Amino acid sequence: MPQYDYIKDGDAIYAKSFAIIRAEADLARFSPGEAELAVRMIHAAGSVEAAEHFEFGPGFVDAAKAAMAGGAPIFCDAEMVARGITATRLPAENEVICTLRDAQTPVIAAEIGNTRSAAALRLWLPRLAGSVVAIGNAPTALFFLLELLRDGAPKPAAILGMPVGFVGAAESKAALAEHSYDVPYAIVRGRLGGSAMTAAALNALARSGI
Amino acid sequence: MPQYDYIKDGDAIYAKSFAIIRAEADLARFSPGEAELAVRMIHAAGSVEAAEHFEFGPGFVDAAKAAMAGGAPIFCDAEMVARGITATRLPAENEVICTLRDAQTPVIAAEIGNTRSAAALRLWLPRLAGSVVAIGNAPTALFFLLELLRDGAPKPAAILGMPVGFVGAAESKAALAEHSYDVPYAIVRGRLGGSAMTAAALNALARSGI
Repeated sequence: MPQYDYIKDGDAIYAKSFAIIRAEADLARFSPGEAELAVRMIHAAGSVEAAEHFEFGPGFVDAAKAAMAGGAPIFCDAEMVARGITATRLPAENEVICTLRDAQTPVIAAEIGNTRSAAALRLWLPRLAGSVVAIGNAPTALFFLLELLRDGAPKPAAILGMPVGFVGAAESKAALAEHSYDVPYAIVRGRLGGSAMTAAALNALARSGI
Repeated sequence: MPQYDYIKDGDAIYAKSFAIIRAEADLARFSPGEAELAVRMIHAAGSVEAAEHFEFGPGFVDAAKAAMAGGAPIFCDAEMVARGITATRLPAENEVICTLRDAQTPVIAAEIGNTRSAAALRLWLPRLAGSVVAIGNAPTALFFLLELLRDGAPKPAAILGMPVGFVGAAESKAALAEHSYDVPYAIVRGRLGGSAMTAAALNALARSGI
């Protein structure tokens, strides 16, 4: 019968994974704090090459960490992003909020002629100021966030713009990097992104050690 | 002020995404049913290149679809996989079960000297026969599943083996493909995988059209 030889200790698996990533990845262009996020995003993606597409705007890590430490809510565009956050490690029992399945969301979507992922952001407005925004799935959500900011919405403390896909993902992230309305941002350029990478970045930000 | 020009209709975004994927991806080696899964997994990954690593064992699509149509429970190793499944589209109101946060799981983990992700599978045993198993995160869960099957556990109807990462992921998936205990399987070879691709495969299987 087959014998399976594998590491069964979670901490040892993490340590070995991060050692492999640091040995293989080119992290030289990142600050130490950015590199810490990059390692965990690479880990979530299972791809060292993904890091070529990571881009951290000026002040992103400090702004996001300060907001989280100060108890800012974390707004997520997708349930999978929210579910990927390790709530017990958040620095201030921060609320993690996804309004995609709110009963008002489809009503707003019909009203504004946009996706439910975009419409869900309307419900963030009362608490958007100083929050941490994590878009890990829908390009339309990121585009709509930019439209809200353009039209005078309160500014979040930091934006993780990491939607994934083939239609609008690259464009929405490029638009954020080009004009973020002075909000510090992190993006994954191009098609890559997704809920796992986004949640990994949030979990890295939640750690005190960076 | 910036104008953002983007598609705001969800169905149109899907249609355009799938058209891009079918134009760019090499799907020739897949059956029509496998190709349908591959397109949706590529979509979730944001990467056409990921498809090079997809491998569907004989009979996988039919076995998984039949089990789901027959009401089989879907066991997931991670909350993110479970959360990524579109419950309303499941063919038989299938239960989606993740036992990672069950109170017994850490107790079992300590007892068996393995991760919580692996230990959680012990709680699947009473309903494992004929189920659909989706491992989208932890290599230890997939290795432990293989050990359970080796030791005589009831057989699921189909196994999605798609854990992601740098330690054990490639090895656990290769082990499944080498000896699946006659259970039809799908894997993503190497380091790639993850909850989004796994949930996308399940959502594709849930569709009646394939």
